[in-house]
Amino acid sequence: MGHTLHSHQGHYGWDNSLTPAITVAPGESIEFEVKDASDGHLGANSTAQDLLTLDFATVNPVTGPVFIDGAEPGDALIVTILDLVPSGWGWTGNIPGFGILADQFPDPALHLWNYDAKGMTPAAFGANAKIPLRAFPGTVGVAPAEPGQHSIVPPRNVGGNMDVRDLFTGTKLTLPIEVEGALFSVGDTHAAQGDGEVCGTAIESAMSVALKFELVKGAAAKFPHYETAGPVTRHLDEKGYFVTTGVGPDLMQNARDAVSGMVDFLGREQGLSAIDAYMLCSVCADMRIGEIVDQPNFIVGMYFPKVVFD
Amino acid sequence: MGHTLHSHQGHYGWDNSLTPAITVAPGESIEFEVKDASDGHLGANSTAQDLLTLDFATVNPVTGPVFIDGAEPGDALIVTILDLVPSGWGWTGNIPGFGILADQFPDPALHLWNYDAKGMTPAAFGANAKIPLRAFPGTVGVAPAEPGQHSIVPPRNVGGNMDVRDLFTGTKLTLPIEVEGALFSVGDTHAAQGDGEVCGTAIESAMSVALKFELVKGAAAKFPHYETAGPVTRHLDEKGYFVTTGVGPDLMQNARDAVSGMVDFLGREQGLSAIDAYMLCSVCADMRIGEIVDQPNFIVGMYFPKVVFD
Repeated sequence: MGHTLHSHQGHYGWDNSLTPAITVAPGESIEFEVKDASDGHLGANSTAQDLLTLDFATVNPVTGPVFIDGAEPGDALIVTILDLVPSGWGWTGNIPGFGILADQFPDPALHLWNYDAKGMTPAAFGANAKIPLRAFPGTVGVAPAEPGQHSIVPPRNVGGNMDVRDLFTGTKLTLPIEVEGALFSVGDTHAAQGDGEVCGTAIESAMSVALKFELVKGAAAKFPHYETAGPVTRHLDEKGYFVTTGVGPDLMQNARDAVSGMVDFLGREQGLSAIDAYMLCSVCADMRIGEIVDQPNFIVGMYFPKVVFD
Repeated sequence: MGHTLHSHQGHYGWDNSLTPAITVAPGESIEFEVKDASDGHLGANSTAQDLLTLDFATVNPVTGPVFIDGAEPGDALIVTILDLVPSGWGWTGNIPGFGILADQFPDPALHLWNYDAKGMTPAAFGANAKIPLRAFPGTVGVAPAEPGQHSIVPPRNVGGNMDVRDLFTGTKLTLPIEVEGALFSVGDTHAAQGDGEVCGTAIESAMSVALKFELVKGAAAKFPHYETAGPVTRHLDEKGYFVTTGVGPDLMQNARDAVSGMVDFLGREQGLSAIDAYMLCSVCADMRIGEIVDQPNFIVGMYFPKVVFD
């Protein structure tokens, strides 16, 4: 590992006019220090009220950008996740206005985690739940071709805030390149996340991330694609799942109904408060599309791992 | 197993005025003979052209209805999948006008399968692909309250043509009941299916299905929910996945882009024709929602199991 980028070597939006923090050749690796998504606004003594003073201009800081020597528009960047070293502290919050059920959860809520960064053993939530952990970077992307500053929040065809939890150690992610040097940055590291990141946050946690970069000339990729080195849900699936569904013509509404149904189910069956159930879905549930062809109705399933209550 | 329903004891649409084929008490089980989704129209000598003469009035026949003694509107029916005995023969088709990429695949295509019904070992597709099998009924539902005949194709809040592949042996499915006696039917048995059933068909295969029925009084369920007895993807996930994504504001378009991307990927990397790749996605890939909160863009991933080419 020849190179290190520190967390102050970063930025808050995507902008292809930013000065690169470092230049590397294809085949090289970098260790990135990544700040938590609150940019250090939250800490061990924070309360839910502190979410109300989050500055959206500085959320989700990323470390970079990295100029990849020889990268040109139309090429693709292969990013291999080599290693993650988590901090052992994290937070999950319900930020008013953010999350798939923002209308049903208007009040701020905050859960602080102290987890086993070395062993990454399941992290306790209350008396009865234990959340399996698996670290990954939520934001992994390159600069878009379009000039100007672009919000860090939405992902794009060039990646960015993908929040895809399967970008864990061993995964090779391929990103379309739109500007010279690619201008890669990484941030928003998570100690665990469910598919969808439904309440809007995961186990948000500073960590360091080691990545290797390779170039595919003229790949002309349209969207990010990736390859995992092994199974993706075995830390969760051992005991099976409780599954709630939404059935109807709109996939977003189906997803909302499935999450809402799981919040009700976990309240009824496990005695969880609605906000706790919602946050737990966000840190460990799977979200799958059951069928998407039997018009006019489709099915989305929220899969909650039974091992959490084992 | 006290009761058997034969495949002629069935119907083609949901209609709460149908005469029950049988009445059982809660706690009882039935073995259902289920016809394939073509209602016997396709057989060992069929070609793609035979898909053009499929009669949509008789597709997806179901066996039933079963009157559950004591079931009333507002109750829920728990259906436990006890056992499936597959026939060993099946088909996968691209039916013009049907499927998530119907616009890109206008021509009929048909693949016939002879699979190992006893061992359910992976079924060969061409020289290089082997599809892991796991049987389940695609259509599992009860009659809707609304009078008249309703198409069997779309699933509804009361279940029906759910095409959710995790309704395999050991899964307990809970369905909302809207009419007296529930009027349960089952059909559309599959030897294997991917999430989404993206080309519109799975490995369509006649089989017998043993189900147990229980009643929960006053459950007031809104949508189907289920509980699996164990992991759901371990027959597929051992070697990891190739994953393509769609990123954007519309989940359906994201899913289309992810499937389209996988068709391209499998062509480029594995030499599959586009129609073969599309049909393979339909019989074995997972479809997951990566993130659904980073407005305005969301991510759908098509997960193709690497074990297929192992």
